[in-house]
Amino acid sequence: MSSGEPLSALCSPALVVDVDKVKRNAQRMMERCHQLGVQLRPHMKTHKTLECADIMTGGSRRCIVVSTMAEATFYADHGFDDILYAYSLPFDKVERCAALSERLDLFQVLLDHPDALERLRKRPLKGGRRWHADGVELTGVYAHCGNTYNCEGVEQIQAVAQETTSFTLQFMEKLKAVGISCRSSIGSTPSCSHPVPDMGKLSEVHPGNYVFYDVQQSVIGSCALEDVAVRVLTRVVGHCPHRNQLLIDCGWTGISLDGAGKLPSGYAMIEGHPDLKLLSMTQEHGRVEPISGPLDCSKYPIGSLLTLIPYHSCAAAAMHPVYHVHSEGRLMGKWTPTRGW
Amino acid sequence: MSSGEPLSALCSPALVVDVDKVKRNAQRMMERCHQLGVQLRPHMKTHKTLECADIMTGGSRRCIVVSTMAEATFYADHGFDDILYAYSLPFDKVERCAALSERLDLFQVLLDHPDALERLRKRPLKGGRRWHADGVELTGVYAHCGNTYNCEGVEQIQAVAQETTSFTLQFMEKLKAVGISCRSSIGSTPSCSHPVPDMGKLSEVHPGNYVFYDVQQSVIGSCALEDVAVRVLTRVVGHCPHRNQLLIDCGWTGISLDGAGKLPSGYAMIEGHPDLKLLSMTQEHGRVEPISGPLDCSKYPIGSLLTLIPYHSCAAAAMHPVYHVHSEGRLMGKWTPTRGW
Repeated sequence: MSSGEPLSALCSPALVVDVDKVKRNAQRMMERCHQLGVQLRPHMKTHKTLECADIMTGGSRRCIVVSTMAEATFYADHGFDDILYAYSLPFDKVERCAALSERLDLFQVLLDHPDALERLRKRPLKGGRRWHADGVELTGVYAHCGNTYNCEGVEQIQAVAQETTSFTLQFMEKLKAVGISCRSSIGSTPSCSHPVPDMGKLSEVHPGNYVFYDVQQSVIGSCALEDVAVRVLTRVVGHCPHRNQLLIDCGWTGISLDGAGKLPSGYAMIEGHPDLKLLSMTQEHGRVEPISGPLDCSKYPIGSLLTLIPYHSCAAAAMHPVYHVHSEGRLMGKWTPTRGW
Repeated sequence: MSSGEPLSALCSPALVVDVDKVKRNAQRMMERCHQLGVQLRPHMKTHKTLECADIMTGGSRRCIVVSTMAEATFYADHGFDDILYAYSLPFDKVERCAALSERLDLFQVLLDHPDALERLRKRPLKGGRRWHADGVELTGVYAHCGNTYNCEGVEQIQAVAQETTSFTLQFMEKLKAVGISCRSSIGSTPSCSHPVPDMGKLSEVHPGNYVFYDVQQSVIGSCALEDVAVRVLTRVVGHCPHRNQLLIDCGWTGISLDGAGKLPSGYAMIEGHPDLKLLSMTQEHGRVEPISGPLDCSKYPIGSLLTLIPYHSCAAAAMHPVYHVHSEGRLMGKWTPTRGW
């Protein structure tokens, strides 16, 4: 695939990323945090690529969150630092966490249980370093307002954002009262897309999905559908008039099974075809039918392209070994995510 | 991870493959086909690795089925031949199919539409070769009795196997009556696990999942639960007594969302704990609760291992960049699948 070619030059299924939307989503979040006076610590779990991390950190390669040790190591190996591993310390990975703590300027781990503190104490760091967690050095308090994902509309999102912020700030006051001063971090793409002023009193926020967004986020109200930066390209590979269905070449390996039962349009939205539904999938096939009424197969010739907007971009991206990046429909290159744990 | 270490030495989540069960499942299928007098053409889509392909072909590296051109190319690059691409010719991949047809002794493509035949005719092969499909050389008729997946028990499976076999054989007779003689191939792990004698009249069968099997196949009746060769290892990472739940470190990135609503035990079976259910998952966490009654968290200390038997091994395997292979619980090495399209 040469640079500058149209998206239609890609074999399908293919995950395509609109780099202009990615940059715009990233820029808006940076500006929002700047205005609030809060540090942005972007989460890498949605895309897991170097290129997108550079865009989200404005090229600093500092101050990120990751969901796996594979991500932590991948980013550390490429010059990133100040990495927060947002996973309550897994006991099987203490040695790997120790290695990164000894190697990076700042590697932060999460603790949520006294046993975890014991595990850190049993593995003192070399070179006079201290664990940045709850061990010798408490760095901060981390909360994820995941309940924003049950919201619909800005008002509900901001109510949850306010509640989480207030709880966190009250907890910080209690810590302060017993002489403990540390940082505070809350997250979630919905709350950070529509922040409340009190979030400016936190040290940092850690959203991630916002760089791609998806149909789920548009339903919640975090973004407009036009902000969604990723698509899965697919082609019609069969007509099944006896079942009133089209077959497409995107199965669950191409977009994941996330979103079951959530949308009238099924597992995704089909761009430009609000009348169609991605009903079900096998490993390499999707079944598409009209939301109501008969299907006119002649409108969808074998080989013609359809464009799926994923319900959940984290889940769709996780199925792809490579993302195809474009600007205004012209291919610019590929981004390769890290995988595994 | 050194060879010979116990499974508990692995970081979780991890997909582990019992190589002895894989060999036994493969051997039984070879013997079954030998007794029937039908050629076995194993499908690679479940595992997509070289090592497992060698086991399934008895080391011949000949006569396989694949679900993607990525698999076809991967196997061709490693000396496999007589590859059947079991996907109705996708128009965006004709050139890639042509390249493999010109390079291999035998590369077979499927056609199910006159337009597809036109596409092949427009791209004649070099070196005096002929397309092995419906073009100049009709190789055979291919059917997949996917409706065996709705069966429960051997009797139902064999009824579908008989029906598919009879339809296919009747169609072969009709072809013969107009002077066309060619091969016939039917598939599905359920039907080939419990074949009917008439299947011996076919040229070949093409099951795939049988090498791993899974909970779904045991529910259908294709295998016993003890035949399932894959597991996802996970660890307890949190206690949530207020929700009557455990948190485990296997989310949908570790086992997929396949099987929703299918089992009393949720998205998987938890080996040795028939009382537990994998209720739901986020990207990197699973929520486990008792099927009924209160949870005794003290039975599941933080850091302790749980073993998930996947509902659908194709879907679980698709989430892992590497499989950890063991014999009787001792690690032997890694298998690396190919991914993408």
